[in-house]
Amino acid sequence: MQPIGFVRSPYSDRREIPKGPGAKHDALGVLDIKTEFEVGLTDIEGFSHLFVIWLFHQAEGFDLIGRPPTDDREHGVFATRSPRRPNPIGLTVVELQRREGALLHIKGVDMLDGTPILDIKPYLSSIPPEQLRRGWMDEAEARRRLETQSS
Amino acid sequence: MQPIGFVRSPYSDRREIPKGPGAKHDALGVLDIKTEFEVGLTDIEGFSHLFVIWLFHQAEGFDLIGRPPTDDREHGVFATRSPRRPNPIGLTVVELQRREGALLHIKGVDMLDGTPILDIKPYLSSIPPEQLRRGWMDEAEARRRLETQSS
Repeated sequence: MQPIGFVRSPYSDRREIPKGPGAKHDALGVLDIKTEFEVGLTDIEGFSHLFVIWLFHQAEGFDLIGRPPTDDREHGVFATRSPRRPNPIGLTVVELQRREGALLHIKGVDMLDGTPILDIKPYLSSIPPEQLRRGWMDEAEARRRLETQSS
Repeated sequence: MQPIGFVRSPYSDRREIPKGPGAKHDALGVLDIKTEFEVGLTDIEGFSHLFVIWLFHQAEGFDLIGRPPTDDREHGVFATRSPRRPNPIGLTVVELQRREGALLHIKGVDMLDGTPILDIKPYLSSIPPEQLRRGWMDEAEARRRLETQSS
């Protein structure tokens, strides 16, 4: 595995990245692809959204179970987006705004500045929202709404 | 990077995997997670859909540009799902049907039997279809429809 490029992001510290329910991911950034891979971007500008696969380069080790920022209960690592994973791979869907040679200007950055990029793929289709179940995330959000109403 | 488990799939040869426009991905399979990572699956059964990140373990080398099975024109590798990528990482959205200990029974397999799994993440939200643009894929499908009509 070798980086195909690096993320340019407004975030230099993990604490700056919006997390939890209702977090907006509309930060602007750039996928700065190495010039040796630029030809691989041919025709990518036709896609509105991309999957970016990247490395949690600051994560060390992993926890199989832990408490995410979005809940006060513990969940298995594969049911969360925790950076402390057996393989420290991150996945983000971003909106491609424009391409400038080997630079992809994107919206929806939630990575740190300097994050190594492993792969980019076109986002082709969505699961219809009415078919989605979101397990503990829905439950945590429902609990939080109840707490807000009763306080 | 170490596999957290392996895919059990009905496909033992790449040519058996449905590809191209209109390809149905409703094959059943299993994500067979190593028992040492089973605790990491806690609460995953609440999610209807998962991202599976895996290795194209049979791919050797890469092409920055190539002709995908869905088109008669060439496109950059990052605008396609070709297995011949600088980092041979695959990404599939699957429907989780049930969990049986360290076995996740899934629908929507498009990997070969024995594929190493690198990571699993919950699928949390979708881009609304009306916001999606699919570049050369839409164009190739439109051309194919025209050819079908005129033949």
